[in-house]
Amino acid sequence: VKVHFNGRLMDAAEARIGPTDRGLTLGDGLYETIAVRAGRAARLEAHLARLRDGAAEIGIAVAPSERELAAALAEVIEANGIDEGVLRLTLTRGPGPRGLAPPVPAQPSLVIAGWAREPGLGSGAPATAIVATVTRRNAHSPLARIKSTNCLDNVLAHREARSRGADDALLLNGAGNIAEATVANLFAVIKGDLVTPPVPDGALPGVMRADVVRELAAAERTVTPRDLAGAAEAFLTNSLGIRPLVAVDGAAVGDGAPGPAFGKAREIVRGA
Amino acid sequence: VKVHFNGRLMDAAEARIGPTDRGLTLGDGLYETIAVRAGRAARLEAHLARLRDGAAEIGIAVAPSERELAAALAEVIEANGIDEGVLRLTLTRGPGPRGLAPPVPAQPSLVIAGWAREPGLGSGAPATAIVATVTRRNAHSPLARIKSTNCLDNVLAHREARSRGADDALLLNGAGNIAEATVANLFAVIKGDLVTPPVPDGALPGVMRADVVRELAAAERTVTPRDLAGAAEAFLTNSLGIRPLVAVDGAAVGDGAPGPAFGKAREIVRGA
Repeated sequence: VKVHFNGRLMDAAEARIGPTDRGLTLGDGLYETIAVRAGRAARLEAHLARLRDGAAEIGIAVAPSERELAAALAEVIEANGIDEGVLRLTLTRGPGPRGLAPPVPAQPSLVIAGWAREPGLGSGAPATAIVATVTRRNAHSPLARIKSTNCLDNVLAHREARSRGADDALLLNGAGNIAEATVANLFAVIKGDLVTPPVPDGALPGVMRADVVRELAAAERTVTPRDLAGAAEAFLTNSLGIRPLVAVDGAAVGDGAPGPAFGKAREIVRGA
Repeated sequence: VKVHFNGRLMDAAEARIGPTDRGLTLGDGLYETIAVRAGRAARLEAHLARLRDGAAEIGIAVAPSERELAAALAEVIEANGIDEGVLRLTLTRGPGPRGLAPPVPAQPSLVIAGWAREPGLGSGAPATAIVATVTRRNAHSPLARIKSTNCLDNVLAHREARSRGADDALLLNGAGNIAEATVANLFAVIKGDLVTPPVPDGALPGVMRADVVRELAAAERTVTPRDLAGAAEAFLTNSLGIRPLVAVDGAAVGDGAPGPAFGKAREIVRGA
């Protein structure tokens, strides 16, 4: 497997991060997960825009231009012979001395890896979820709006889901409203409207979410667990795909089968 | 500089983490910061107990026994000739495939680094703080109770403090009560009682905090920003030391000078 590491393509076994990298010691980093379709990075512009916004939010200078990043992603696709698959770009603030204060200037670390297609949301198969009880999403933090590497809450919620026999977990925010799933955004048809939790409720502004909101004129509106229990249908989206959400906490969503809004959204997911 | 990496002492330049390490990609890790005093790891038992509790909470198996961890810490102290200083132990879930689900079994990564004494809370010098506005602490998450590497909220709050000319930031929880500082616990004398925010309010159960609570019979009680504004005195503790907190958001705490409770707590900090 070939990866791009700090500007150079190399074997994954050669790419090594130092023990003082703040990505490792403090979770001081960002990432993007990008689908590869027909040998090209999908929705690339939106991913690079979100990366740029996240880097600005936390004050990491991204040295490569968007053109250079796009070239590096293409190199990883090419080197690994990926036709359908996924890229993972990780950007950290790089090495630093002990403590929270970053070095000035920082020398960010950038890793890009790629894999041929794998299961997951890309499968399109019906999914079940629980509402996580082990943790909640922090809608008061800017991290809820950027794709930071601080994913341990999501890891714990996902672990709870698997231990309770579900595919994924929905995370509540501090107010008890639904924010999102562990690695996907939620959409639901509630009282006839297609809705998705708004960003201030703790929903990550997903790249695929934005496409579905725009194309299907979905409303960004607070979703309570009770709203979801009464939904006609629901589905989960992320950059890799879409799955109908057919049960939550063991109860069927709507009639427990993929619905018409899912069908329309799937066309959007496949479209770009 | 010598570090201990996965069971072996080596030059820091040799210790390298792979790009798929979940500590790097997902913040799936824990750490401990341990003071070195007179060539020995201070409050070692409490640190190892917290590491064990954190690992149990997130489901990481710690392969080395506490005896082996103690020996590794001692090796790092010895190899770097540290008399007074600090150790940093980082434990991650180790390498994994893409996605939130950990490999079974996981092969955790363990890095222990050490440095001779540095400034910080160890200095004992008066500190100023702001109440962070950029983010809040998530008291709904188990991460508030363990020392995870998901520190980006703290990095952002610390950055806000420095940009506003203060030494540190106090983090509120979702309810608007004070949880802690970015890398220290808060104590304050309020209406004659020495109090510290309780763990359910989002205070990390600090090793030094526990000693001060026990020795000075401090009350674990919710602290509002208004309570703190009316405090007779306040101070910050962490494993490396203690500092009087003499101003918050530009207003003096009490008479703006270290108080008698600080003096007593400093004896405890120096004692063990």
